[in-house]
Amino acid sequence: MRGTVLYGPRDIRFEDREMPRIEQPTDAVIRIVQTCVCGSDLWPYRGLQPTNGPTPMGHEYCGVVEEVGSAVKSVKPGQFVIGSFATSDNTCPNCLYGYQSSCVHREWMTRAQAPVLRVPLADGTLVPTPGVPSDDLVPSLLATSDVLGTGWFAADAANVKPGSTVVVVGDGAVGLLGVLSAKQMGAERIIAMSRHEKRQKLAREFGASDIVTERGDEGVQRIMDMTKGIGADSVLEGVGTQESMTQAIRSTRRGGYVSYVGVPHGVEFKGEELFYTHVHLHGGPAPVRRFLPKLIDLVLNRKINPGKVFDLTLPLEQVAEGYRAMDERRAIKALLRP
Amino acid sequence: MRGTVLYGPRDIRFEDREMPRIEQPTDAVIRIVQTCVCGSDLWPYRGLQPTNGPTPMGHEYCGVVEEVGSAVKSVKPGQFVIGSFATSDNTCPNCLYGYQSSCVHREWMTRAQAPVLRVPLADGTLVPTPGVPSDDLVPSLLATSDVLGTGWFAADAANVKPGSTVVVVGDGAVGLLGVLSAKQMGAERIIAMSRHEKRQKLAREFGASDIVTERGDEGVQRIMDMTKGIGADSVLEGVGTQESMTQAIRSTRRGGYVSYVGVPHGVEFKGEELFYTHVHLHGGPAPVRRFLPKLIDLVLNRKINPGKVFDLTLPLEQVAEGYRAMDERRAIKALLRP
Repeated sequence: MRGTVLYGPRDIRFEDREMPRIEQPTDAVIRIVQTCVCGSDLWPYRGLQPTNGPTPMGHEYCGVVEEVGSAVKSVKPGQFVIGSFATSDNTCPNCLYGYQSSCVHREWMTRAQAPVLRVPLADGTLVPTPGVPSDDLVPSLLATSDVLGTGWFAADAANVKPGSTVVVVGDGAVGLLGVLSAKQMGAERIIAMSRHEKRQKLAREFGASDIVTERGDEGVQRIMDMTKGIGADSVLEGVGTQESMTQAIRSTRRGGYVSYVGVPHGVEFKGEELFYTHVHLHGGPAPVRRFLPKLIDLVLNRKINPGKVFDLTLPLEQVAEGYRAMDERRAIKALLRP
Repeated sequence: MRGTVLYGPRDIRFEDREMPRIEQPTDAVIRIVQTCVCGSDLWPYRGLQPTNGPTPMGHEYCGVVEEVGSAVKSVKPGQFVIGSFATSDNTCPNCLYGYQSSCVHREWMTRAQAPVLRVPLADGTLVPTPGVPSDDLVPSLLATSDVLGTGWFAADAANVKPGSTVVVVGDGAVGLLGVLSAKQMGAERIIAMSRHEKRQKLAREFGASDIVTERGDEGVQRIMDMTKGIGADSVLEGVGTQESMTQAIRSTRRGGYVSYVGVPHGVEFKGEELFYTHVHLHGGPAPVRRFLPKLIDLVLNRKINPGKVFDLTLPLEQVAEGYRAMDERRAIKALLRP
């Protein structure tokens, strides 16, 4: 088969790879139905995150089970399944506390931008849908695998409640689905920070009540003006830079909540400044597995349509164009079909 | 009158000061019954925190109201009252959210190591006791003013619940009262980090189930050994150094809670490290006013005896010896009687 490999900055190749097969009795091998390019893939793509030689790419996936190892019990060949970027046994203490992305047996998934994928710890990682979903739902099911699961965690970690005033910093796919998640959780006011027309439009569709185009100190000032000088209850940070994190913290009311769900790059929190802001801070790699059953259910019942973040669909072999389009911000998120 | 002034590193003087009087219609003037030296007073005392010339000291106090301004409604001359180190109107949005130490009209109290004290925003800051408390309860009531209120906030901010496993980093008075607070909140296991015999004893009296003497990486390893490699649910950081903060974060389970209640000195949180720990982080200057009614009630009903942290009692004019004894760790906390 052919799969996606990053060779260096902006050098994505779709090339011959070994066919995945069962290696451990807890593995499953699935045939990918749809996969996609993640905003986090752009860090190494842009050379902003070092890689150790040629790196197979992809960690968002849904597909049909082809084969399972001898120890796999809850997943069967022929089932349509969705997994997350972190494998989990779903039985260790960290998993039981709801932090499956910190499972003591966690492996980071990669190699999903390919037609076939080996998934370790299949029982604890994969969630099957009841029956085979209709085609039009597949992009939204794919979205639950990471980008929606991460946006949902952002809203959950920022303690979004019915009536909350929420700010979302970052208009990437995660930020946009943070808007959708906050809306689902009953937020009253959702302020999306975006200066990009297409993304503003999608933010409004997902439930944003206000759009703020200013950034940095000016962005903070606008939020303060909109909240009587007090700040927002919940701020979702979905970028991972020092500027966006500082903006998020300063937009939050005293005692409010800041979540951060993208790997921070070069971010430092000054202890003393953070102390006097009185914010709650929580984040990390989203424990998508915790939310998958609920999110799949919302999609299958057509309550939400997170698949709208895919504004570019390509055959898998054109994966390099998917990276380019996202890098140049021509596309919000590129869906790939093997 | 004479009051306490810090002139420079280890130079505390008890000297003539102007007699406080009502300046604003919202002020009260109180005659101090007891005051004390705070762990945070030691930062400028040791020259580790810059001061801007001679600085009047003291922010923990209880006393009897002498006079109130024309706008004061809920506090009357003759009442025994307790206040916190931060004044608050107790009506602004930050106060209503329970963050009175970030009140939009907050002033930091100082000048309380003196026989008479002006308290701004008396209605929102001072809490009167029902009747005059008996003498033996006064040290514990004084403790609610800051050191217990701060320890209580540490436990609250670290989400201590019935059944929790709790670690307390720091065996100062705040840490010791963090132990007491965690016990009150129903923690099942409370591990106090201390290598000081007298403090270990008090920690046990306050409810610690275990004492760990190791620090840094060794301390973290001990906590991991005691929690099956998972870490504690709640870790209270009551020191404010990089070492103690790092130790606190690394002792916490994934998805657990770290609180920090002492002003961090030179502490930085690396975004990427914090991200992968999955901890919740919350802290800041304790909103003692939120907890005062409950804590006063617990003391008056003799459910708790936080005044035990005072292991040295001095006449106020010997305040300099109180600082010395705490600086040299001869005393946990020095109580001062005018």
